[in-house]
Amino acid sequence: MQLGMVGLGKMGGNMAARLRDKGHDVVGFDFNPELRDVASLEELVGRLDAPRVVWLMVPAGEATSAAIEKLSDLLDAGDLIIEGGNSHYVDDRKRADILKQSGVSYVDAGVSGGVWGRENGYGIMVGGAAEDVDRARPIFDALVPDTGGGFVHAGGVGAGHFVKMVHNGIEYGMMQAFAEGYELMAASDIVDDVPGTFDSWREGTVVRSWLLDLLVRALKGDPELEELRGYAQDSGEGRWTVQAAVDHAVPAPVISSALFARFASRQEDSPAMKVIAALRNQFGGHAVAKTTDDPARTPRS
Amino acid sequence: MQLGMVGLGKMGGNMAARLRDKGHDVVGFDFNPELRDVASLEELVGRLDAPRVVWLMVPAGEATSAAIEKLSDLLDAGDLIIEGGNSHYVDDRKRADILKQSGVSYVDAGVSGGVWGRENGYGIMVGGAAEDVDRARPIFDALVPDTGGGFVHAGGVGAGHFVKMVHNGIEYGMMQAFAEGYELMAASDIVDDVPGTFDSWREGTVVRSWLLDLLVRALKGDPELEELRGYAQDSGEGRWTVQAAVDHAVPAPVISSALFARFASRQEDSPAMKVIAALRNQFGGHAVAKTTDDPARTPRS
Amino acid sequence: MQLGMVGLGKMGGNMAARLRDKGHDVVGFDFNPELRDVASLEELVGRLDAPRVVWLMVPAGEATSAAIEKLSDLLDAGDLIIEGGNSHYVDDRKRADILKQSGVSYVDAGVSGGVWGRENGYGIMVGGAAEDVDRARPIFDALVPDTGGGFVHAGGVGAGHFVKMVHNGIEYGMMQAFAEGYELMAASDIVDDVPGTFDSWREGTVVRSWLLDLLVRALKGDPELEELRGYAQDSGEGRWTVQAAVDHAVPAPVISSALFARFASRQEDSPAMKVIAALRNQFGGHAVAKTTDDPARTPRS
Amino acid sequence: MQLGMVGLGKMGGNMAARLRDKGHDVVGFDFNPELRDVASLEELVGRLDAPRVVWLMVPAGEATSAAIEKLSDLLDAGDLIIEGGNSHYVDDRKRADILKQSGVSYVDAGVSGGVWGRENGYGIMVGGAAEDVDRARPIFDALVPDTGGGFVHAGGVGAGHFVKMVHNGIEYGMMQAFAEGYELMAASDIVDDVPGTFDSWREGTVVRSWLLDLLVRALKGDPELEELRGYAQDSGEGRWTVQAAVDHAVPAPVISSALFARFASRQEDSPAMKVIAALRNQFGGHAVAKTTDDPARTPRS
Repeated sequence: MQLGMVGLGKMGGNMAARLRDKGHDVVGFDFNPELRDVASLEELVGRLDAPRVVWLMVPAGEATSAAIEKLSDLLDAGDLIIEGGNSHYVDDRKRADILKQSGVSYVDAGVSGGVWGRENGYGIMVGGAAEDVDRARPIFDALVPDTGGGFVHAGGVGAGHFVKMVHNGIEYGMMQAFAEGYELMAASDIVDDVPGTFDSWREGTVVRSWLLDLLVRALKGDPELEELRGYAQDSGEGRWTVQAAVDHAVPAPVISSALFARFASRQEDSPAMKVIAALRNQFGGHAVAKTTDDPARTPRS
Repeated sequence: MQLGMVGLGKMGGNMAARLRDKGHDVVGFDFNPELRDVASLEELVGRLDAPRVVWLMVPAGEATSAAIEKLSDLLDAGDLIIEGGNSHYVDDRKRADILKQSGVSYVDAGVSGGVWGRENGYGIMVGGAAEDVDRARPIFDALVPDTGGGFVHAGGVGAGHFVKMVHNGIEYGMMQAFAEGYELMAASDIVDDVPGTFDSWREGTVVRSWLLDLLVRALKGDPELEELRGYAQDSGEGRWTVQAAVDHAVPAPVISSALFARFASRQEDSPAMKVIAALRNQFGGHAVAKTTDDPARTPRS
Repeated sequence: MQLGMVGLGKMGGNMAARLRDKGHDVVGFDFNPELRDVASLEELVGRLDAPRVVWLMVPAGEATSAAIEKLSDLLDAGDLIIEGGNSHYVDDRKRADILKQSGVSYVDAGVSGGVWGRENGYGIMVGGAAEDVDRARPIFDALVPDTGGGFVHAGGVGAGHFVKMVHNGIEYGMMQAFAEGYELMAASDIVDDVPGTFDSWREGTVVRSWLLDLLVRALKGDPELEELRGYAQDSGEGRWTVQAAVDHAVPAPVISSALFARFASRQEDSPAMKVIAALRNQFGGHAVAKTTDDPARTPRS
Repeated sequence: MQLGMVGLGKMGGNMAARLRDKGHDVVGFDFNPELRDVASLEELVGRLDAPRVVWLMVPAGEATSAAIEKLSDLLDAGDLIIEGGNSHYVDDRKRADILKQSGVSYVDAGVSGGVWGRENGYGIMVGGAAEDVDRARPIFDALVPDTGGGFVHAGGVGAGHFVKMVHNGIEYGMMQAFAEGYELMAASDIVDDVPGTFDSWREGTVVRSWLLDLLVRALKGDPELEELRGYAQDSGEGRWTVQAAVDHAVPAPVISSALFARFASRQEDSPAMKVIAALRNQFGGHAVAKTTDDPARTPRS
């Protein structure tokens, strides 16, 4: 079927290519003239037959909002926007409500698969009305792996990005679990072969997983991880997961711990731990304590 | 090669069977007369040619210690004990030191694989001296999957059980990550198809794993987990992992959070949360507060 | 000085009374005819001399927003609104921006002190422009304890509610620390006198605090907390603190753990722990497992 | 009454001085000739009238164990040892069992109060048999503050050190709660006066406490804590509290989080976070990934 694709970077470009390989007619727009088929959103909309389907694959936040605002002026009632970036599910709902006023439909799609997706297919999690999802189904079918797995219509608008967000939150927890296990083995004086241990776990154990595969690969190249600093970025989804858990009164100690560990990893020095150090200094009854008449007693600990 | 197997329950019995299938000569002892080849440890030792190899597969703790103590009297210098149960690595080290005085060697083996191991092979993680591990290598080779993976000689005595313990700690964290993600999706009013979402993640995502496979299977039979109570046991290994982390000054927020969630799941009522409730009651300046002359002020919150 | 007070419930009524005791001229409005001096916001505004100062002490959220919207129509440039409820600091900032367009100033005030405040004074934390805070300073001076402590101008608009929010977050962590210590002593078979232990800590120790005083009082009436259920509500501020920490990339493991413990305390059954139970069931290789052809291996643990 | 005091350092020396001020007859031994009254434990025991009471105030661990072993040879049935150092409660129980064979009694005493204790009194938490505690009661009465508070007989042998341990665990949680609150306020762009905010909380709030007093004092000298590194030691008691919680199946998320934050503060680089960084690198499908034929798909995130 025919599809407009806005954003032809690493993700959008590969997805467009996979769709074309599968016989779909993709009209692409990007700010980069070398990547695009059409020179403007106006031209893109003009090239598509109504009712149109336009897939957005641009950076989350401002860029996505701006593209949607512009498209809302250009598209007609009956057209469909699929937002495939990393939007927050609450933003999806707001946008869908606004677009509904002009009869434009909205589907949100969480996309997993990275640079390997073009060849192997993408995981696709979508939210939206059944009729809108059905209309775009040939596109989804072409994007997922050839096995036909990897697709879910998770619920109404926002559900796609919601479950992608939760996926990433789970990922944070799993990664941190492996990380803690690694550190404990490395800190002990008892385990001589940490990389070999992880490698052995790839068969017959409970923890076998794609993340374990990746860790074994990483340790093959750098058995003691000497080339890396313990510094980890976090994406919006991890934060959103914790905030959604708080909003829904769901205990999320593991996912939040994993997120906080990343926060801490990026600090040159920890303000919180300065407070601990300051308080411990105060216990000691050092000089500074003499200058105050209160409190009366300074316990040892 | 020839092997004595002490403990022919679900695990030991299946392992003995797999070893025999692979051509090894196993002499088995169990307290249950229906399962055993010999009627006593004395007879078992008598039936084995020196230098002997005896594999212990009995419940951790007292039973294992008692068996080792008895064997230490019966075995000769040059013989080898392989402790395949869930011993604590510190106990392994103590036992090995004692046995060394009479020339008996000790190897600890963490075994993973459960009831499927007989057919598919076990994950085996061992600790001990290289010469002792090498001597028993044909046994290990027969127990692991036919691919030859799933084995590691992790270090000296205790290292096998140490890495098995860490494996289980990681497992706790991974399970809790999935559990939190599940609860968040179930608590939201936005996700209509939670089982389908997990199922879709089995392809092309970061969280794909054996645990995800198991969760999808569980949700197929009981999509809202209505047949289960949120009550989870913990094994010694989870606790030991947290305690080892504390001993080694390794931050383990995820693994400990997962363990604590299990503790809490088994409480009819939480004493800690009674304290929170009691303190909140006190804030209110209710009747009880009137009976005291202190403290002067009761803040709102 | 003259002050309009909107909301004469337990908090607002006591504050108005304390202000009058200190010689201030308070005109009060409430929906309850028995409590109020004037019958409407219109009448309240009419009774005050310009430039007016109006203190809001109504339930957070809709009620507060509605009152501010109405007042924004009635007040003149140069007037000042003090929002003393539990608003979110981001809402404060939005409101202040809107009011600024009509020249009305806005100060947010976090208030601590509960039912004891009338007699003993309130803790007051304010945010706003220096000139606005200065203008209302006589009011703040009358509300705080007679010692003159308990007041801070923490920063611009929103800062008052921000630091009140953080105060409550810290409170959550402190309460949970005592709660965990209580549970550990109660769970051990070694401590015979838990209430006496807490009581002894009121002198000469590091943990002496108003919360400890409250706990000792609670244990005097109910030494084993048998009259209470381990069920704890949470207020918005605890949630907001965690969300603000996430927004600012600040690790907050203790405050979030304390919040999550409250969430968990209110669950009849934990969906997350059902997942743990379900996964543990799957390990066992029970009947349900036989009906699937995948996965190949089911490890013991 | 008469008391032998072993260990006359900062703590033991001050305690001996306070006891003498209150009219008790203290015979002191220390390895430092300048501090002691007697030159050996033998001489100390010889100078005391039976039944003797000997208070140990030496470094925890080896030094304490060695002193007890030596004293067990020198003392007679009916004598009493009070161990006032920071022993683990399990060690107390072992020692008491051994001493009981020769009729020597054992009481463990957790002592709080630091350098201010000589003047203001110490918090004393003891464990032991009632008759032994009663015998030493005049000593305890002289050590605690003149108000008579600050003492508890918490239970049998070990209970004194157990509750002192829990006290310190609670202290960890409280300190971390303040630390997180500080960091959040410092990280925001909204709070202009962090020290003033803490200061204002000393009146009329829920968080008022001796730790808050200390923090306010520390911030007076160094308002942005610029002179300190975020590096915090931990004492044995914090670790023991977490381990005891795990042993007793008590959820302790706050105390353990506080402990882990200290562990992390002392790491130049975090091995765990290197694993996170390594895994994130692997996602990207970078060069290293090309050299493997597995896994098939590399998702974006």
